[in-house]
Amino acid sequence: MRVTIAQINTTNGEIEGNGARIIAAIEEAKEQGSDLVVFPELVTHGYTSQDWFQDADIVEHSADPLERIIPATDGIAAVVGTIRANPNKDGRKVFNCAALISNGKLLGYVDKTLLPEYDVFDDPRWFEPNHSSRRLFDVNGTKIGIVVCEDFWNDKTFWKERLYASDPADEVIAMGADLVVSINASPYNKGKIKLRCEMVAHRAKANKVPIVFVNLVGGNDGIIFDGASLVADEEGDIILQAAAFEEFVETVELDRRKPDARGITGGEIRSIHNALVLGIRDYARKNGFRKVVLGLSGGIDSSLVAALAAEAIGPENVLCVMMPSPFSSEGSITDSEELIRNLGCESRIEPISDAFDVLADQLNLLMPTKGGESLAAENIQSRLRGVILMAISNAEGRLLLSTGNKSELAVGYCTLYGDTNGGLAVLGDILKTEVWAIARDINGRAGREIIPTRIIDKKPSAELAPNQFDQDSLPPYELMDPVLQLYFEQKLSPKEIIAAGHDADLVYGVLNKVEHPANEFKRQQLPPTLIVSKNAIGIGRRRPITHKYPRRR
Amino acid sequence: MRVTIAQINTTNGEIEGNGARIIAAIEEAKEQGSDLVVFPELVTHGYTSQDWFQDADIVEHSADPLERIIPATDGIAAVVGTIRANPNKDGRKVFNCAALISNGKLLGYVDKTLLPEYDVFDDPRWFEPNHSSRRLFDVNGTKIGIVVCEDFWNDKTFWKERLYASDPADEVIAMGADLVVSINASPYNKGKIKLRCEMVAHRAKANKVPIVFVNLVGGNDGIIFDGASLVADEEGDIILQAAAFEEFVETVELDRRKPDARGITGGEIRSIHNALVLGIRDYARKNGFRKVVLGLSGGIDSSLVAALAAEAIGPENVLCVMMPSPFSSEGSITDSEELIRNLGCESRIEPISDAFDVLADQLNLLMPTKGGESLAAENIQSRLRGVILMAISNAEGRLLLSTGNKSELAVGYCTLYGDTNGGLAVLGDILKTEVWAIARDINGRAGREIIPTRIIDKKPSAELAPNQFDQDSLPPYELMDPVLQLYFEQKLSPKEIIAAGHDADLVYGVLNKVEHPANEFKRQQLPPTLIVSKNAIGIGRRRPITHKYPRRR
Repeated sequence: MRVTIAQINTTNGEIEGNGARIIAAIEEAKEQGSDLVVFPELVTHGYTSQDWFQDADIVEHSADPLERIIPATDGIAAVVGTIRANPNKDGRKVFNCAALISNGKLLGYVDKTLLPEYDVFDDPRWFEPNHSSRRLFDVNGTKIGIVVCEDFWNDKTFWKERLYASDPADEVIAMGADLVVSINASPYNKGKIKLRCEMVAHRAKANKVPIVFVNLVGGNDGIIFDGASLVADEEGDIILQAAAFEEFVETVELDRRKPDARGITGGEIRSIHNALVLGIRDYARKNGFRKVVLGLSGGIDSSLVAALAAEAIGPENVLCVMMPSPFSSEGSITDSEELIRNLGCESRIEPISDAFDVLADQLNLLMPTKGGESLAAENIQSRLRGVILMAISNAEGRLLLSTGNKSELAVGYCTLYGDTNGGLAVLGDILKTEVWAIARDINGRAGREIIPTRIIDKKPSAELAPNQFDQDSLPPYELMDPVLQLYFEQKLSPKEIIAAGHDADLVYGVLNKVEHPANEFKRQQLPPTLIVSKNAIGIGRRRPITHKYPRRR
Repeated sequence: MRVTIAQINTTNGEIEGNGARIIAAIEEAKEQGSDLVVFPELVTHGYTSQDWFQDADIVEHSADPLERIIPATDGIAAVVGTIRANPNKDGRKVFNCAALISNGKLLGYVDKTLLPEYDVFDDPRWFEPNHSSRRLFDVNGTKIGIVVCEDFWNDKTFWKERLYASDPADEVIAMGADLVVSINASPYNKGKIKLRCEMVAHRAKANKVPIVFVNLVGGNDGIIFDGASLVADEEGDIILQAAAFEEFVETVELDRRKPDARGITGGEIRSIHNALVLGIRDYARKNGFRKVVLGLSGGIDSSLVAALAAEAIGPENVLCVMMPSPFSSEGSITDSEELIRNLGCESRIEPISDAFDVLADQLNLLMPTKGGESLAAENIQSRLRGVILMAISNAEGRLLLSTGNKSELAVGYCTLYGDTNGGLAVLGDILKTEVWAIARDINGRAGREIIPTRIIDKKPSAELAPNQFDQDSLPPYELMDPVLQLYFEQKLSPKEIIAAGHDADLVYGVLNKVEHPANEFKRQQLPPTLIVSKNAIGIGRRRPITHKYPRRR
């Protein structure tokens, strides 16, 4: 049997366009002599459509996409992730399901059973769980067992902790499936590509059953699907490995016993880089922006965003605006100009001094001094930069990229309505130490300075007061980032983080900043953050602003 | 049997303070000769604690609050909403439960079964559902059946549509409960106080069983619990009716057969008003703000916010900042000054003209003209006002209240990082026509002009360009608001709204604005909105920015 991975990139609600892309992939599969082409979860509508799945009009027309796809399957079978209306009065309005189509006929649906409700997932909000047990279909003598995403992710022999008691994938295997098809919308985060490969190979080998695991690709607001689909044979060998972060339509003969040696290239830093580039490109493209704008400070964060944006949409479409104030260091312009030359971006200088003087004078603000109490006057500089960038965004129709990193945003070291302004927080899930690593990796691969080393090596500073450095207010990033990583990504308690070898004062100091209501207040007004971890700031982390939860010593 | 409603106002995570308030209410109940005191859902921790319910440290200490409460129950029984750790390895870390305590002993827990996942609710994200069937307890010969919130809300004889197949409240009644205790955290929205009374009375009468229905009170970010708890006897008569929007600890003899004639006073406009006042007061108080600031434009929205804020925290704590530009109408200052006198607020004038001239000149912006293409120059005025207000907020430690109404925010008629700035969007769930109604009601009750009639009657204008009026860009609010109401609150499709008598061009024009990605982008960066409807902008309405969902004609 020949099976095709159809790892495609769709847009929420682009019903006609997504349908056309699906039909084109079916045609490609046919040309490749395929017997079965497998698409990701909810590929007709877009998995990240949220409350649109309860919209009366969308529910009423939920079957429309398949009507066009079914006739395109002459001579081939296809598994297509979609929704179907719930015929019952009680419960959610739709099922999240896989449609099995063969030779111009709809053979049936398999509904998703386990509905994830954690991190960025809210499936029970929209989908009725599987009520029926049908999961196995005979296609030309092969018994195909089908599961939708989470239904594959609860293998008791693989996970130490599980959220659910049942395992639908085990059930289809027990029913005698010759082949398991798993359709997914599994977002990228660090380590996940490797994890998926291990999980699929483990189950294939343990159960002596080939598995076709197809994942979505593409950026959708902050959520980035990496693809990296795969086919494992009954020995647990990966015999087809799709590329990550791009579309991929290829076919493999299930019985050929020839592992796919391509694998996923590059380390985790490269994957993060690729995720961010895809995230910027898709957010711009899917929302109709051809050009972007960003404020270039001479620091590493905005420099990295400029480099990523140049890669994502072309340097000629990236406008870097330098906005010096009296507190800007000498290098802020010269270093930026070197970066701009290296990248080939457009640039512009818009000093904020005149407007700052007018407002500081009018409002009688205390002028910033080294270590002084001048929050209002410091913030006003950042906010004037935000005003200028938004004016350019408005006047030229450019998407504004915001440049703050996760370390800053986590502890509230940012100015709301200032440097947080933008359509997309490119580095909002990237710790400062990761920012440096990605920048060095860019230079390393290029074999030359793309991002000037002076920018990478300079002491981090907001430059809102004389001789101001981040480390006047915060612990060094090298000490703070591991604490943030354990707290956010591993969800360790303060005591557990201290037990892992971190200084108690540092841990409580950092975490009390993280959980301060004034900082949660800022985080709740950020633009979507490109997500690369299991606990990003934004839709995957839900906390009240108003709270007095204690961090116990 | 004498039963006490303990409708109290707690703060997320204020474990000690909440515990002290609970113990104080138990003492009050004892003084009132009560046999059973009933508290709302999750009163120990705060129902709106979100991901804190999965925090390792909070889970580890989840039993702490009860340890102090149990000894305080000598001579009385108490039902207290709390969490308890899930002893199993699989599943969520805690149950959302009611603890039944009597005479210094914990008799047991009843876990919540039905976990709501719609609107602002995400219960399955945090809570493991009830696995055991115990719901009935004998207290001094009375069989008390206990259910937690949603478990009471699925009566098949009351609701036309249901989300769940089972009905835990029916089960406890079938087990022979002499009394049903329902503990709730049921947020206010329009019509809900009446609905709850009907729902409770219906079940009590149909099943010939008295019901004690206790609800939380208090504001928590955007979510406002109204209280309005009640006790219905076995005839379905309400024999104790708690006040709405304030704490209430009172006791009733279950068998006395004497309906409580107090009811809930005032119409829905008054309830909305009270909800907003409580929402402002609690957000300020629970976050440690004694003073607020807002921009007063001379229009109705900011005028109403000033009036509500003055009522919530005292006029002497409200600073109104007038920020005229060359496009401000003559009345913008004089009308505002009259309002400020009527309210007794503080005020200040900070023109934006100088800073605007500097930036407009520096950026070569096209100056605003009547009906011209001058978006950048219009927005910059709103953003400079935002900069000034945030500078005052920073310098004086004042909470900034934002003043945009739901009609504007729904169709994107607002400036992000400008008039949307703030800690709390007071009117973010209030349609423009409701804004007018609340303002008139304030004057009507006062028997004099608190909000000058000139402000109520003036033609809505953003005053960002010469002779600019909202109705140059939008349909009249009288036509638009009913469409928004049907779309948001009733979740009708465009076709259904048209069938209800609204003009098709108007309906599609308005809804295409609502669903435009550029407007969802703005809405996702708003501060928390005080919620008074079943579909507010904010955490109860989840949509991707990036989408191409069609609105089919």
